[in-house]
Amino acid sequence: MTVRQLSMPELVAACVQLGVPGVGLWRDPVHAHGLAATAELVRDAGLTVTTLCRGGFFTAIDPQERARALAGNRRAVEEAATLGTDTLVLVSGGLPAGSKDLRGARERVADALAELGPYAQRHGVRLAIEPLHPMYAADRCVVSTLAQALDLAERFPAHQVGITVDTYHVWWDDTAPRQIARAGAAGRIHSFQLADWTTPLPEGVLNGRGQLGDGTIDMREWKGYVEAAGYTGPIEVELFNDALWARDGREVLAETAGRFVTHVTSRPGDAVRP
Amino acid sequence: MTVRQLSMPELVAACVQLGVPGVGLWRDPVHAHGLAATAELVRDAGLTVTTLCRGGFFTAIDPQERARALAGNRRAVEEAATLGTDTLVLVSGGLPAGSKDLRGARERVADALAELGPYAQRHGVRLAIEPLHPMYAADRCVVSTLAQALDLAERFPAHQVGITVDTYHVWWDDTAPRQIARAGAAGRIHSFQLADWTTPLPEGVLNGRGQLGDGTIDMREWKGYVEAAGYTGPIEVELFNDALWARDGREVLAETAGRFVTHVTSRPGDAVRP
Repeated sequence: MTVRQLSMPELVAACVQLGVPGVGLWRDPVHAHGLAATAELVRDAGLTVTTLCRGGFFTAIDPQERARALAGNRRAVEEAATLGTDTLVLVSGGLPAGSKDLRGARERVADALAELGPYAQRHGVRLAIEPLHPMYAADRCVVSTLAQALDLAERFPAHQVGITVDTYHVWWDDTAPRQIARAGAAGRIHSFQLADWTTPLPEGVLNGRGQLGDGTIDMREWKGYVEAAGYTGPIEVELFNDALWARDGREVLAETAGRFVTHVTSRPGDAVRP
Repeated sequence: MTVRQLSMPELVAACVQLGVPGVGLWRDPVHAHGLAATAELVRDAGLTVTTLCRGGFFTAIDPQERARALAGNRRAVEEAATLGTDTLVLVSGGLPAGSKDLRGARERVADALAELGPYAQRHGVRLAIEPLHPMYAADRCVVSTLAQALDLAERFPAHQVGITVDTYHVWWDDTAPRQIARAGAAGRIHSFQLADWTTPLPEGVLNGRGQLGDGTIDMREWKGYVEAAGYTGPIEVELFNDALWARDGREVLAETAGRFVTHVTSRPGDAVRP
């Protein structure tokens, strides 16, 4: 999504050219290029699909709507398996229209996980609950903290349900480091994503995620937390940003790879070509 | 601030007319009308000043800037005393430019409270740390949760430092009810404010606080939490809302008083004239 202006073949070619070894894919662009064609394209290019984003949106009360959501999530599991990734990222969904019941909505997320977890396991796919920033609690994701995500995940086996740590959503939370330790000890950190926090937030607060290094989040600090918790998986950069989407996608990808070296993988004293 | 389009005399007259017994004041409008004149106006009208908003902005690193902030806060304490309120609400301040150190900023808030608390006590004023929603952590308030606010407050006597519970800022937090209980048991709920959560959020996310009943927050539920924790003080409605500010202020105040009855003080089965 960081470079959604690129077609799937352009994205894959740019990753290969830059030496980016893996890519997290979203379902819409995969559908646009075709599931089988995308799977073949990334496999032939030697790229790893790190995660598929996203399943979820489990909070409907209406039985038909709920059945549709679960059916869509089973398809997402199958797509993840076809793409060769073992991780499906889940965004829980917000409050149904007119509802004020966060607790009830979170319970419906648990109910859905109970149905989806075993199905995912049979396909070799792990579910990764992503807590979104509390500013999305009403309209997008009733799971707002790592603690809430883990409270949900721990009702199920770790190979079925874990969590996603995204710096953008958890950076403000002083309890997040110990929740990351809790998740790591149980083998439940299934995905780790980076974005920086920049202000002012745009209207609707969706597409203002900052390029690494532009904001208030110390990326090395958070990488340190997940590594100390035993995480050795891929690190994704996921930027929803209107300004980045308006630019040349290859240039944005190259910039992002450079920022990744500068702000994430190099040691502070290293000489780095940005 | 809910009806900042009204002058101080208009505000006071409208409160009296509607039977609103108390009013929370902000410093700027008080300065605009004059401190002594405002104190006399509200006293003569028989209104209680529930709180003064706001002090705070304690997070500067620069010593001169820090000294200026503390001096400003001492004046705010004096103004609160002159206005006859025992509560000064504090918004902590955000990260200094270029800083990524939330922990350090929170410690500087504690340092400021250590200086300001005894000064406030000598003036008969209690400080009320208001945690703001985590979406303000970078640019406005590094204290994002009731737990963080209480961790700070508990370093000081309860008659010096407590907290503000504002539904808008804490509604998403499943740990907030037990933090309210923790605060109440220690006599640290110094102020209770209401606003509803509506989406989409406006650019900058400052002025989109919803009129009571328009959003996703169950006001009675939160009133129940603070009352169960022993709170018997005033309940303020504080709406920053561009749409409300664009309307006739008396009309907005009357509407707000009606919403307060409908969504806060009446029992669900009551017949209510909105």
